[in-house]
Amino acid sequence: MLVNGLPSDVLSIADRGLLYGDGVFETILCEAGRPVLLAGHTQRLENGCKRLGLAKQELPTILADIREVARQDDCVVKVIITRGVRNRGYSFDKQDNTSTRIIYRDDLPGIPVDYYRQGISLTKCEYLLPDNKQLAGIKHLNHLDQVMARSEWGKEFQEGIMLANDGRVVEGTMTNVFIESNQQWITPKLENSGVLGVMRQWVMRNCFHAEIECVEKDIQLSELQNAQSIFVCNSVVGIWPVTKFEGKTYLVSKAVSTIMREANSSLTKLYPI
Amino acid sequence: MLVNGLPSDVLSIADRGLLYGDGVFETILCEAGRPVLLAGHTQRLENGCKRLGLAKQELPTILADIREVARQDDCVVKVIITRGVRNRGYSFDKQDNTSTRIIYRDDLPGIPVDYYRQGISLTKCEYLLPDNKQLAGIKHLNHLDQVMARSEWGKEFQEGIMLANDGRVVEGTMTNVFIESNQQWITPKLENSGVLGVMRQWVMRNCFHAEIECVEKDIQLSELQNAQSIFVCNSVVGIWPVTKFEGKTYLVSKAVSTIMREANSSLTKLYPI
Repeated sequence: MLVNGLPSDVLSIADRGLLYGDGVFETILCEAGRPVLLAGHTQRLENGCKRLGLAKQELPTILADIREVARQDDCVVKVIITRGVRNRGYSFDKQDNTSTRIIYRDDLPGIPVDYYRQGISLTKCEYLLPDNKQLAGIKHLNHLDQVMARSEWGKEFQEGIMLANDGRVVEGTMTNVFIESNQQWITPKLENSGVLGVMRQWVMRNCFHAEIECVEKDIQLSELQNAQSIFVCNSVVGIWPVTKFEGKTYLVSKAVSTIMREANSSLTKLYPI
Repeated sequence: MLVNGLPSDVLSIADRGLLYGDGVFETILCEAGRPVLLAGHTQRLENGCKRLGLAKQELPTILADIREVARQDDCVVKVIITRGVRNRGYSFDKQDNTSTRIIYRDDLPGIPVDYYRQGISLTKCEYLLPDNKQLAGIKHLNHLDQVMARSEWGKEFQEGIMLANDGRVVEGTMTNVFIESNQQWITPKLENSGVLGVMRQWVMRNCFHAEIECVEKDIQLSELQNAQSIFVCNSVVGIWPVTKFEGKTYLVSKAVSTIMREANSSLTKLYPI
């Protein structure tokens, strides 16, 4: 663990990351020490810092930190940037470049290979994801919505889908969602809420490998239910086909198998096929 | 500073309070070591823990911690309860009572007495407060909305009012708001968003001292602009009359002066009159 480049596993209790969730984070899969999908992570981190007015980060410094904690191992590295320790209160001095850079290492999540081969069970969360255009897309430290949504079930499902107030499908608690319908992949637009996933971006850019086009548009719950196939993805777990949702079963489509093989061969062998 | 009852000014970087803002807090004014409006703070804290499924806290333990850090001084004590260090991911074991209890002391904010006697300048935040019934009322650690709203101005205003998406007035970035209109005090209902302020509750229960009735109802921006008088309040600063808002000036009404005197005499001399 590194805090501002120095070995540490603690943080000041006056840090705004704790007090207000005033910061952003990335969770990066590393294969033999190599960060997977690094450019997507660093771009989102930079964009998040910019939108929240956090100090601009030196990417080579972050990368050096990641390599130091990952060593040559397969692991997950979490990068957290907060606005650091400041005066009390919500206000902050825009000229002050104080920030806290936390880099910490975790084991691989140890996901059963069945999740990839047989697919997962998806549930629908009762907890609704509030619309908030102002913070939509970035991966900030305010994640109580996801914590509360995830608390609705135990181990009987592998992921839960979150809807907006008006019933639109937005995302999973920790993944983005895609449906296959009329030879297209459709993933929800995330202008009003949700996190612009790095794996979501990769799928959108690489869907041509599966000879399918991919569009972003609003999805209603009925479209999710009536989809030909469904998958969820994030950069740590890769792609999980969904084979059960709300009492219906779904097949793992040929296109989904193809994109999973592509992710395995071009991104990392840590995504099983 | 105390973390789980032991002297410390740091927290594990794996604490869910940092990772997700998974916790609640209270900021308590202490006069000569005595916590002001203590019952209101502890009730909101208990209610917040219950709604988020945080471990039930022992109030005598928290109170002992507060007294220890406050000593016999005039100061502000912040109490933070988080879900502590757990496994990775949003899920948490509901049988696990792990939590982190952080108690830390700050100096008094040192507010100019003019804010009470001449009143403050209020601005309107462009940043809209998202509706979220599911977390409305409690004082949780997800406060990026307030940080972003507060970043819209510097020292030219003392507080900013936040509106909901539909234009309703909700609250200040750090205070609740009341308007005086037709011999009534009106404060926004906080069913969809906002924090149920301890001072707001006290004002509602004690308005009879000012021979005025107080109602909770939706307020539009035009009603705020056309109010006979406006005040904002929280338990740390007490009551601030608003005398400037959007180019208009407002008087400190007789009823507001009366409730400020009542707060000073029955709650704490730290609220100036």
